Amino acid sequence: MTPAPTGPLTGVVPPVCTPLTPDLEVDVPSLERLVDHLVGAGVDGLFVLGSTSEVAFLPDAHRRTVLETVVKHVAGRVPVLGGAIDMTTLRVIEHARVAAEVGCDGVVATAPFYTRTHPAEIERHLRDVAAAVPVPVYAYDLPVSVHSKLDGGMLLRLASEGVLAGVKDSSGDDGAMRALMLALRDAGADRFSVLTGAELTVDAAFAMGVDGVVPGLGNVDPAGYVRLRRHCLDGRWDEARAEQERLLRLFGIVDAGAPDRMGRGSSALGSFKAALHLLGIIDHPVTAPPQIPLNEAETDHIRTRLTDAGLL
Amino acid sequence: MTPAPTGPLTGVVPPVCTPLTPDLEVDVPSLERLVDHLVGAGVDGLFVLGSTSEVAFLPDAHRRTVLETVVKHVAGRVPVLGGAIDMTTLRVIEHARVAAEVGCDGVVATAPFYTRTHPAEIERHLRDVAAAVPVPVYAYDLPVSVHSKLDGGMLLRLASEGVLAGVKDSSGDDGAMRALMLALRDAGADRFSVLTGAELTVDAAFAMGVDGVVPGLGNVDPAGYVRLRRHCLDGRWDEARAEQERLLRLFGIVDAGAPDRMGRGSSALGSFKAALHLLGIIDHPVTAPPQIPLNEAETDHIRTRLTDAGLL
Amino acid sequence: MTPAPTGPLTGVVPPVCTPLTPDLEVDVPSLERLVDHLVGAGVDGLFVLGSTSEVAFLPDAHRRTVLETVVKHVAGRVPVLGGAIDMTTLRVIEHARVAAEVGCDGVVATAPFYTRTHPAEIERHLRDVAAAVPVPVYAYDLPVSVHSKLDGGMLLRLASEGVLAGVKDSSGDDGAMRALMLALRDAGADRFSVLTGAELTVDAAFAMGVDGVVPGLGNVDPAGYVRLRRHCLDGRWDEARAEQERLLRLFGIVDAGAPDRMGRGSSALGSFKAALHLLGIIDHPVTAPPQIPLNEAETDHIRTRLTDAGLL
Amino acid sequence: MTPAPTGPLTGVVPPVCTPLTPDLEVDVPSLERLVDHLVGAGVDGLFVLGSTSEVAFLPDAHRRTVLETVVKHVAGRVPVLGGAIDMTTLRVIEHARVAAEVGCDGVVATAPFYTRTHPAEIERHLRDVAAAVPVPVYAYDLPVSVHSKLDGGMLLRLASEGVLAGVKDSSGDDGAMRALMLALRDAGADRFSVLTGAELTVDAAFAMGVDGVVPGLGNVDPAGYVRLRRHCLDGRWDEARAEQERLLRLFGIVDAGAPDRMGRGSSALGSFKAALHLLGIIDHPVTAPPQIPLNEAETDHIRTRLTDAGLL
Repeated sequence: MTPAPTGPLTGVVPPVCTPLTPDLEVDVPSLERLVDHLVGAGVDGLFVLGSTSEVAFLPDAHRRTVLETVVKHVAGRVPVLGGAIDMTTLRVIEHARVAAEVGCDGVVATAPFYTRTHPAEIERHLRDVAAAVPVPVYAYDLPVSVHSKLDGGMLLRLASEGVLAGVKDSSGDDGAMRALMLALRDAGADRFSVLTGAELTVDAAFAMGVDGVVPGLGNVDPAGYVRLRRHCLDGRWDEARAEQERLLRLFGIVDAGAPDRMGRGSSALGSFKAALHLLGIIDHPVTAPPQIPLNEAETDHIRTRLTDAGLL
Repeated sequence: MTPAPTGPLTGVVPPVCTPLTPDLEVDVPSLERLVDHLVGAGVDGLFVLGSTSEVAFLPDAHRRTVLETVVKHVAGRVPVLGGAIDMTTLRVIEHARVAAEVGCDGVVATAPFYTRTHPAEIERHLRDVAAAVPVPVYAYDLPVSVHSKLDGGMLLRLASEGVLAGVKDSSGDDGAMRALMLALRDAGADRFSVLTGAELTVDAAFAMGVDGVVPGLGNVDPAGYVRLRRHCLDGRWDEARAEQERLLRLFGIVDAGAPDRMGRGSSALGSFKAALHLLGIIDHPVTAPPQIPLNEAETDHIRTRLTDAGLL
Repeated sequence: MTPAPTGPLTGVVPPVCTPLTPDLEVDVPSLERLVDHLVGAGVDGLFVLGSTSEVAFLPDAHRRTVLETVVKHVAGRVPVLGGAIDMTTLRVIEHARVAAEVGCDGVVATAPFYTRTHPAEIERHLRDVAAAVPVPVYAYDLPVSVHSKLDGGMLLRLASEGVLAGVKDSSGDDGAMRALMLALRDAGADRFSVLTGAELTVDAAFAMGVDGVVPGLGNVDPAGYVRLRRHCLDGRWDEARAEQERLLRLFGIVDAGAPDRMGRGSSALGSFKAALHLLGIIDHPVTAPPQIPLNEAETDHIRTRLTDAGLL
Repeated sequence: MTPAPTGPLTGVVPPVCTPLTPDLEVDVPSLERLVDHLVGAGVDGLFVLGSTSEVAFLPDAHRRTVLETVVKHVAGRVPVLGGAIDMTTLRVIEHARVAAEVGCDGVVATAPFYTRTHPAEIERHLRDVAAAVPVPVYAYDLPVSVHSKLDGGMLLRLASEGVLAGVKDSSGDDGAMRALMLALRDAGADRFSVLTGAELTVDAAFAMGVDGVVPGLGNVDPAGYVRLRRHCLDGRWDEARAEQERLLRLFGIVDAGAPDRMGRGSSALGSFKAALHLLGIIDHPVTAPPQIPLNEAETDHIRTRLTDAGLL
């Protein structure tokens, strides 16, 4: 049974990287420093165990350590959402229950993956997950990983019925996201949060009316995203644009890894961690296998971008 | 450290369905009856926790119950392979270690999924998994689920180095599979098993030189696949073709579910279980959520096909 | 040899529908009325023979008729771009030369399709097309049709060298589009037009700095898009948002066709033509085969939306 | 109106390469020599203007030259099928009518592409094309190019009604192809030809009951495919397998082109033409733009393979 959330989640909610030790354990002190780096910059919430957290790479014990560490260290300063990322319903429910037990303020679930799924099965999945946990459930629209797009009509239905508390939209289909927001407004479903996963069009997303943003790059420069949002809220669109463009240039770090040596995931997640390491926030730029580590030249590229962005 | 397998796995190795109770626990007595149904029909091995086993739908405790039940009940009559199906390396290694501990004769792993992967990462993944368990590791080529195809050059390399013991090829690319078999032969890599996941072209696959077949439909009619293989081994190609065509007609059960009500997975896995239930082998035709259950008319379609195939 | 364009193309540039007669010829009087409807509303240019023009459905003689009709009827009031949509280089060059001969101010070409292409081949293709015609060439980024995305680095290179005059970006990847715009600005490539194909996020696109917009829905309500752009140019972002939201509601006409009866293309193109017919601008709502025609109930849905949007 | 074909097309029907001159015109003498090379080797038919013919790269005038040259030069020795490859119905009908006028014995058409299509539209398309030309129409199942798979139920329906004369199946889904063949047999639709586009599993395909094969590699070694089929017809399966394996090794020429320099199409089509040039059959190994030409080292790789296969 999902209680109605007390109000929609809003603002800058970075998906928190998971620092690792060289022997691939969760680096708890680094994770705590990262949390302080983010909360100290004024973010409005944290999303742990999402794609940027390398959730797909973390065994269950690592996942639990992350949840416990962050919930305890945040100590209520901001809401914490926990990803319950797995292939299908029973597995997702197990993760979601752990997140709720540990004290997360909400859980986040994608459509089923690995299996060949169908819209009716996606809807059943989200309903079953929401019914199984005592905290609000957010849908995670991530076609690049799960190879299906959440249907707008379904999201509207689950929002109107109070089944879901929101959506993290990383589909890149801003037209569909906007159509959903308009339909939610028309339906009076104003307790449903629409959060965009886009990190390069945040000013535009706020102008369209999103409730919040979940920027992976927010690990590296949370203060930038906080400023960007303030500009948007205050209608300073020129300043917002300038801030977004600065962040866009900084985002060039994700192309550090040579595309013939590694996938875009290795390059992007590796660059966030390398940046956090260069900034002195985490102790090791280690990513989980089978990701390919960045080499020294690639790390130099990141150092240059950080300097250009005024962060180093 | 992977010991060299004592010889390539060959023959009919059905991917074993996982019977469930109405409250979604593993139905152990039904699973034991299914094992006896398969082993009694003369199959040459069992593959548990593959896609047909609904591995994507089973929590870890269910998975362990399946492994323990089958390994114990088989009691060495035939080799048992255990699927270690998860997103990336550390998670897969955990599953693979459980399978090895419980006594499986080999483990089966796909390319990474959910993440955006790269050939170099796939190779690192398979090497890391093989290095982490004391039993032979088989690669599972399943683009429909993991959205990448295993590279033939990589398989040849890992076969030649003894890293992998075989491949279960469910890619449907029989030209590539045949090119691999020829390259393996040229390289003298004769301890590497090539198993096809195709169930409708098994005679052709044996004619091309595969070592074995992993047919989902083999749950329903294992004796048919055992006969089919015997015909192939003995060069009775006309009889093989007739048997394969009978099985092909039987395979029509997988279309039982209306495509506008459910996905192909729900329909196919549901039809195997409905058939096993109609045949009196398992107690419940239950599939795991969020799969859509077959209705009565759809089950009638399956009953007719079973009768036509001489099984009812 | 491509002459440098005299300045970047900017503003509202609708992709013009191609009215057809019941016997599937180009309906020239209707096309002329449609041109007047658009130019009279104050649009800044016309794009003929794009996807919205059913270019994929029109034989070459139809295509020539469209080009000649529009260029002659526009008579220089606004620039006219002509799509040169075909599979590969030699075929595209033939279309491009016809468009240039007839008097188009620019031609528009996609990446190769039907073939399995490669980034180096896409670049060679666009260079060859640009070298073959005496008018500016615009790249058309349309992954949904051609199944590859134009690389940002390549566009920057071709822009900087003056090979291409602009891009019509219908990829939906606004982050990449924005990164391109920033890179163009940094490179001083200010004669290169970035036009978005998005019709539901036009205010956001202008806020990000696009030069123009190519909205299919602009056939139905060109004045709305002209107003929307004016609001953006004048910094009236609230009015822009309200206008965009009105157009977004109107865009619901594209869902008129039942998804189990037809594809999204049939439904969207059929709805634009049905709307133009209901508005009295074109004589027949006919679409080219094999598209499925909308039925009466579906047309009623469109009538309602037009009324709600204040157009009927 | 499509007349019933006088009997199903059977045997080896190579898709004929289109030799080009250095200035990208059809090299008619080379094409005539290639036709003689193929017909002289005993092939049972020719398929011109398919994917292997670079149909996607040839302007309409080139296409007509190819059709006229081949039909005239073959002079009735074997049937000639002409590809009518274009995006949608009206365009395909134009090509199909040219092929019929010029004297082709049948035309071949794919599902629509570039557009977002729907099964009902694919069926309407094939029906419209078949109704528009006075020669038999064959469906071309080519998901890699058109991004949709022809539905087996539809093919059975169009076969049973006599709308289509056959299918060239390059989908790689041999299970579905076999299910179709069985359904055709059950329905008594014995005048419908099933031709496989696979070139590496031809023995298996004949064992399953296909009527013929359309092997791109048959340009290079038509005699090999003719022998292979004879072995199959006469039940010499071991010899068939050996011949197929020899051809499979020869097929390694298609990997000549470096994958980082070009696409698989450039490499495969380039390798066929390079081989034909090395064999003295065509004058130039030229492929149409934007394909990347093979370099000298890559051509050496092909020379070695031809030597190994006993062709040089």
